[in-house]
Amino acid sequence: MTQDHHILDCTIRDGGLVNNWDFSVQMVKDMYYGLSEAGVSYMEIGYKNSAKLLKGGDSGPWRFLNEDFLKEVISRKTETKLSALVDIGRVDENDILPREQSQLDLIRVACYIKDVDKAIDLINKFHSFGYETSINIMALSHVMENDLNEAFAEIAKCPVDVVYIVDSYGSMTPQDIDYLVAKFQRQLPEKKLGVHMHNNMQMAFANTLTGALKGVQFLDASVYGMGRAAGNCPTELLVSHLKNSRYNVRPVIELIEKHMISMREKWEWGYLIPYMIAGVLNEHPRSAMALLASDKRNQFVDFYDQLTSPEAMPAGQAD
Amino acid sequence: MTQDHHILDCTIRDGGLVNNWDFSVQMVKDMYYGLSEAGVSYMEIGYKNSAKLLKGGDSGPWRFLNEDFLKEVISRKTETKLSALVDIGRVDENDILPREQSQLDLIRVACYIKDVDKAIDLINKFHSFGYETSINIMALSHVMENDLNEAFAEIAKCPVDVVYIVDSYGSMTPQDIDYLVAKFQRQLPEKKLGVHMHNNMQMAFANTLTGALKGVQFLDASVYGMGRAAGNCPTELLVSHLKNSRYNVRPVIELIEKHMISMREKWEWGYLIPYMIAGVLNEHPRSAMALLASDKRNQFVDFYDQLTSPEAMPAGQAD
Repeated sequence: MTQDHHILDCTIRDGGLVNNWDFSVQMVKDMYYGLSEAGVSYMEIGYKNSAKLLKGGDSGPWRFLNEDFLKEVISRKTETKLSALVDIGRVDENDILPREQSQLDLIRVACYIKDVDKAIDLINKFHSFGYETSINIMALSHVMENDLNEAFAEIAKCPVDVVYIVDSYGSMTPQDIDYLVAKFQRQLPEKKLGVHMHNNMQMAFANTLTGALKGVQFLDASVYGMGRAAGNCPTELLVSHLKNSRYNVRPVIELIEKHMISMREKWEWGYLIPYMIAGVLNEHPRSAMALLASDKRNQFVDFYDQLTSPEAMPAGQAD
Repeated sequence: MTQDHHILDCTIRDGGLVNNWDFSVQMVKDMYYGLSEAGVSYMEIGYKNSAKLLKGGDSGPWRFLNEDFLKEVISRKTETKLSALVDIGRVDENDILPREQSQLDLIRVACYIKDVDKAIDLINKFHSFGYETSINIMALSHVMENDLNEAFAEIAKCPVDVVYIVDSYGSMTPQDIDYLVAKFQRQLPEKKLGVHMHNNMQMAFANTLTGALKGVQFLDASVYGMGRAAGNCPTELLVSHLKNSRYNVRPVIELIEKHMISMREKWEWGYLIPYMIAGVLNEHPRSAMALLASDKRNQFVDFYDQLTSPEAMPAGQAD
């Protein structure tokens, strides 16, 4: 625990999936300066996707970050770096400035295993622009080992700085993290590693800490756990627990008091039984999200029966 | 994970600390038969304290279990055994029937380290009556090692079946559990071990699983985590996760749907920031409970400042 870790707070980016990025400029400013005081190394301030390439382009500035706007919001940068996430097929490379003209320091590319080659193309581009880069392989609990080995071979050769283990379905335990981190370390000895965990089984903090103890350097978290569905590892817990004099939980508690309690009253995330069921079954949370948005939101047994009935299998998977 | 574990569900006993044991007879019956179907080995149906010895004796039947009443409630026993907890100084030994006349199978004695000798007196008595017994050492995170070593020497000689590691303040991590279980195993090689975890840092499930993997046999949990303050390891997660064909999460989901959602709307437990702060600071939750019952319930920063100011130290501890 004496190793050097970086907390990357993704409240605005991942939390935006909960409230359609309905964050005020003041709230995002408070977050940035509060997280800076707390000792958080990176704040992910949104997506750098292109509104032209994505339907529903009315989600406000944090989904389609614009550099001029960012300079207004974060007029004084602290030691806390800024990151943005891009999705394969949703980013217009022409939107990306060279790093010295940008407020951003790190660009993270999220991809499924089948798109690793496309992700590497983007990484090469962003790296040549001067950015730190990461590749975030989603849904790792659904990836076959041979596909992962092939991806590692390509990733090892590319200039990416950080490779992330993403527990998209919140189905992993510390034992799984232990196994995966060892595997990533073995096959990608020259890359830094990151973990991005979801809280369906109340394991996000435990998994993140397990990663940290094994030498993972990039630890994703969000304030009060705000993030899609069951949410993320709570920043307040990570800041409280990591042994380093730069961390201070008080500003995070202040952010929760000022912003997060009222947000949680308005929007919903965290340990809810449909998310627990999806996590335990190692499934995407989309069906749980649909249930919770319906008038059957508390009919957990029916939901469980649907997900576990043989008919619930996708076509081609039941046989 | 292929070892034999016993889940002990303590929803009625520990959850009663949240709602002053305001559980209907029907609810408790549903719990017992639901948990039986789920594969839970023990259900703790309340306290076997004496109303005469305890102020506030109006808390209903689950705080002061009566054998005739118990026979009415659980008229048909399944394979799921029943347990009750007693507190030092609050139990009248004359209230305890010989086991063959009782509905109870296991009596658990909760004590602080200073009262281990009194606990052993009770254990000797209950053991001679034919009960399975456990000793639950509370507040282990505040116990000095030499005191613990002395207690172990006495416990090793007494007939108690199970010795519990209790994280009363919810301040432990899987690393702590790992360490403590190894120590308990070394010094109490002939006793079974148990873990009773609290969820202040969202670690109750992770800690319980860590114990299980190290060979701890008695795993405390409660449905939907219901228990004092931050609550316990959720039964639904443990049942979902332990690898044994006797476990089935569906009846637990049914109990949550039928009973726990409405209870959680009426009463409060779980991951709330004042409990998180108390857990992180390794403190009793009583000040957090008082805060949450006041009109300053969301003034987290003031609360944090109070608990961390030098004046917050108990008399005699600041110097």
